Amino acid sequence: MDDGMLIGQGFDAHRFAVAGSSRPLWLAGLFWPVPQGVDPAHYEGIEGDSDGDVAAHALIDALLSASGLGDIGSLFGVGAAAHGAGMHGRDMLHETVAFMRAHGYEPCSASVAIIGNRPKVSTRRIEAETVLSEAVGCRVSVTATTTDHMGFTGRGEGIAAIASALVRCAGDEG
Amino acid sequence: MDDGMLIGQGFDAHRFAVAGSSRPLWLAGLFWPVPQGVDPAHYEGIEGDSDGDVAAHALIDALLSASGLGDIGSLFGVGAAAHGAGMHGRDMLHETVAFMRAHGYEPCSASVAIIGNRPKVSTRRIEAETVLSEAVGCRVSVTATTTDHMGFTGRGEGIAAIASALVRCAGDEG
Amino acid sequence: MDDGMLIGQGFDAHRFAVAGSSRPLWLAGLFWPVPQGVDPAHYEGIEGDSDGDVAAHALIDALLSASGLGDIGSLFGVGAAAHGAGMHGRDMLHETVAFMRAHGYEPCSASVAIIGNRPKVSTRRIEAETVLSEAVGCRVSVTATTTDHMGFTGRGEGIAAIASALVRCAGDEG
Repeated sequence: MDDGMLIGQGFDAHRFAVAGSSRPLWLAGLFWPVPQGVDPAHYEGIEGDSDGDVAAHALIDALLSASGLGDIGSLFGVGAAAHGAGMHGRDMLHETVAFMRAHGYEPCSASVAIIGNRPKVSTRRIEAETVLSEAVGCRVSVTATTTDHMGFTGRGEGIAAIASALVRCAGDEG
Repeated sequence: MDDGMLIGQGFDAHRFAVAGSSRPLWLAGLFWPVPQGVDPAHYEGIEGDSDGDVAAHALIDALLSASGLGDIGSLFGVGAAAHGAGMHGRDMLHETVAFMRAHGYEPCSASVAIIGNRPKVSTRRIEAETVLSEAVGCRVSVTATTTDHMGFTGRGEGIAAIASALVRCAGDEG
Repeated sequence: MDDGMLIGQGFDAHRFAVAGSSRPLWLAGLFWPVPQGVDPAHYEGIEGDSDGDVAAHALIDALLSASGLGDIGSLFGVGAAAHGAGMHGRDMLHETVAFMRAHGYEPCSASVAIIGNRPKVSTRRIEAETVLSEAVGCRVSVTATTTDHMGFTGRGEGIAAIASALVRCAGDEG
């Protein structure tokens, strides 16, 4: 194995909750309140065992994959030591990085591309980057785009995120 | 923050223009004329404020994200200093890299995977790589694939692109 | 060109074969037998000239792209020196890395995110990582996720994979 830089790829997609389920929307480590003038019934959060934060989840997979330490399912899935039910993406990222460090891996850089119609990530991009960077302990950048009304993200059925990460092996594996 | 290598992830998708709109097709820095024997009404270009070059746009997001300098919307969107309306992807890449360098970042390597039925990127892959590499100032590689008639790319509704980039912090941020 | 680390992005998607075609399912370098209690007519393999292993194919594109050596189509497509018809993903990876090394490139790290409803990759993730890492000659990590019944992967029409790779230029190009 190489003792230098390691790369990880992550992907996640979740469905918006059904209208009227009053599920809060969490994305990229932030809570997104219903914008003024928008019917809350049409601004549901994301389904999922946890808070459905696809950006955080894709980053977790990228970080774990780069470290060769499994994926979000093996670390936070049903039956796993750190069960993710009800957890926020930011806290899951914290636990992920603690787990990586315990095994001798250090995050160097990470980036996530969010694909969806809402929320308008660009309005709070820097805030999201600050929260995620603090959780991961290295710079995490966020971009956001739509799919021009095409596919499940374009029809507003759900949100997807693609992440990549660089990780360094800081020492011996625990 | 780490002073070494930084990674960026980018994604973009655009819809083909409606039949008969006579929109020229630009992708991966190249103009793609209507192939011989093909009805031009069935070979429309890509919708978008700019030339709709998803490969260039995904690369711009990957480069900006790696540099922690926002995304294509913040640099070229409506109201931004460098407004992207009518711009070609190649020129947007040039401006992106000038902006990165002014802030002390240098592109090291970039790669973009194009997903769509047409144009046949493989017939001009090396030409596309040459144009994009020249625009970015480091090697940019291009791959292309389809989705076996599945999804919006497979039905020929549009094109998508996933890009990643490595960037080095060359000095102090301006 | 930079003499340091190079990045490559890869993507692939393939359709499941039609029910009753008795096509074996190969993914991430492994053969996936029909699970106990599942009707084999509803557990078809993946269509494709080769074994349809989208994870291996996305990794090949990522590795070749990072090396600036084309893509899976140019190396294994119809008319190419190493024609991929009937080949297993693992063997195609072997040939890809031999081709890279003959041109002075060495894989450093690779990661692939598999997107689909089946097979249950998590049950054999470490086995898949072992086979792929052996084929590539560096650590290859595997993550797997679904799209919550959305899109072509969520409807079970097919499988997709996104891969990224780091490659080092080990010497002069042959």
